Amino acid sequence: MAEISFFHNPMSRSQIVHWALREAGVAFETVPVDWNAKPQALLDANPMGKIPTIIHHAADGDVTISEAPAICHYLAEVAPGQTLLPTPRERGAYFRWLFFAAGPLEQATTARAMGWEVPEGREGMAGFGSYERTVDTLEWWLADHDFVCGERFTMADVYVGSAVDWGLVFGTLPDRPAFAAYAERFRAHDAYRAAKDAHNALIAQAQQESQQDG
Amino acid sequence: MAEISFFHNPMSRSQIVHWALREAGVAFETVPVDWNAKPQALLDANPMGKIPTIIHHAADGDVTISEAPAICHYLAEVAPGQTLLPTPRERGAYFRWLFFAAGPLEQATTARAMGWEVPEGREGMAGFGSYERTVDTLEWWLADHDFVCGERFTMADVYVGSAVDWGLVFGTLPDRPAFAAYAERFRAHDAYRAAKDAHNALIAQAQQESQQDG
Repeated sequence: MAEISFFHNPMSRSQIVHWALREAGVAFETVPVDWNAKPQALLDANPMGKIPTIIHHAADGDVTISEAPAICHYLAEVAPGQTLLPTPRERGAYFRWLFFAAGPLEQATTARAMGWEVPEGREGMAGFGSYERTVDTLEWWLADHDFVCGERFTMADVYVGSAVDWGLVFGTLPDRPAFAAYAERFRAHDAYRAAKDAHNALIAQAQQESQQDG
Repeated sequence: MAEISFFHNPMSRSQIVHWALREAGVAFETVPVDWNAKPQALLDANPMGKIPTIIHHAADGDVTISEAPAICHYLAEVAPGQTLLPTPRERGAYFRWLFFAAGPLEQATTARAMGWEVPEGREGMAGFGSYERTVDTLEWWLADHDFVCGERFTMADVYVGSAVDWGLVFGTLPDRPAFAAYAERFRAHDAYRAAKDAHNALIAQAQQESQQDG
């Protein structure tokens, strides 16, 4: 059995985990998830059937993890050499921006995509305050740092990078030079490209199957 | 100088950090934040002036951290003895529920408070899917575990616990037995009560000052 079981559907946030697995260099088996017939192993591990979900087959028993940023960080912990984890000096930035992307940024871009407006005077109630302020904050950091923790790529860049990647492709983030320059840096990673190639192959295969069925 | 500078306004999410600081047992100085005249030290550390923010005055230089869950975890890392951190076996649950509370749960309760509805067929676009499903998932876990990681209180309980605490007090979470039982467990903590007492004293003082001004 591989070290990690990875429940995957290419049309989902599990793409983020796909990249993380390849950065971590751990052995994994992909368990395809059909939305209409979810695998029993996924429902046993996570009754809500939500993906991304992984099962780590550790020496002392299985561990189930869900939530993309939690899985990314967990994989950095179990990866050989642990070089994707932050050093003590990098720790503050690493967790700050991981939670910034999982919280305010995700919330601000979702609200915008859905057309939800924060009523005036209630900015304090929404953790992100406003879309503009959230995006400006991320831009302020990335304009001044090659990667989330400074000069070095860490696992935080897989999650924050995925948010920037999707944001630029789908237009949920504005096209600013600091975002484009950051994207250029993380897109040069072999693991990013390998995950992207595998993703495109899965999409092509799904389209072919759907044509054969039709 | 204390080990940590803590930018605080009692009417904000920095209450969560107040509890975390007391659990961690680290020396801290409170820097009061007036919304209308933010301290320069806060603006220097975090140009957006967002709280909670802390500065850790480490031996090799200052580290700024924002985002409540990131600060909680960071404090667990620097706390003497590190007993609030997860063990390797607890690590999966610890990060899973920390990110669940920071992402889907925060997003679902904010959307509900704002009156935002996820249009049918677009559940996949909102990371939380639906309010009901998000709340059911948290209930499913807490019904079966005394604390986030199982039998033992960790720093994840300060953040997840704060979400449950606020949710029950302000009605953003439904009143379910698993939430009430969990709240009873974490409210018994000395650090929780000390932070709550300090909070109530600050609120009383602010009210007194506002009466004297008026």
